[in-house]
Amino acid sequence: MKIVHAQDVPSEASSLAGTKRTTLRWLIAAKDGAPHYAMRLFEIEPGGAIPVHTHGDIEHEIFIVEGEAICNDGKNESKVKTGDALLVLPGDQHSFKNTTDHMFRFICVIPI
Amino acid sequence: MKIVHAQDVPSEASSLAGTKRTTLRWLIAAKDGAPHYAMRLFEIEPGGAIPVHTHGDIEHEIFIVEGEAICNDGKNESKVKTGDALLVLPGDQHSFKNTTDHMFRFICVIPI
Repeated sequence: MKIVHAQDVPSEASSLAGTKRTTLRWLIAAKDGAPHYAMRLFEIEPGGAIPVHTHGDIEHEIFIVEGEAICNDGKNESKVKTGDALLVLPGDQHSFKNTTDHMFRFICVIPI
Repeated sequence: MKIVHAQDVPSEASSLAGTKRTTLRWLIAAKDGAPHYAMRLFEIEPGGAIPVHTHGDIEHEIFIVEGEAICNDGKNESKVKTGDALLVLPGDQHSFKNTTDHMFRFICVIPI
């Protein structure tokens, strides 16, 4: 069993074009021996954002652990907040914009 | 995209023998169209526990969202707390015991 605290995992900038003030930590990854999926912690600072985008072949399963943000699914905006779970299927558009004064943090699980 | 708040998902008792004061909510499941893995929220009340057990063929990826507990891997006990991520591989023994006065909550992702 691997046990790691999120703050002990290095953070890196998101590589997605147009992303602002957003970092992620690979809490559980293929290099840990994870057989099927990886767990990342995303952190979007106040004023930060991940622009609307889509993935053709992978899903996201997301759980918001802290804060709130505006989520755009390509058509509509909605507020998402601590305790919300999101299933983003392949092809689903999605984005997050932190318009608050606090950090926005979420877990995002993706296939390996 | 599915968006749901954890508290709006019904909770059910854990079916694992020996589990005490523990419920789970299926936040994202096969019925939602999740292709590969499901996300559950476990809640262990003060005095509650999930006994030491193992799964032969599935992994768990866990993120602790609230509280702390004692985790036993079949050999050693360690304290786990908010912000910890755990990779429990097939065959790994694991358990949780909430010896605190507060709720212990964690996300647990399993293959479908």
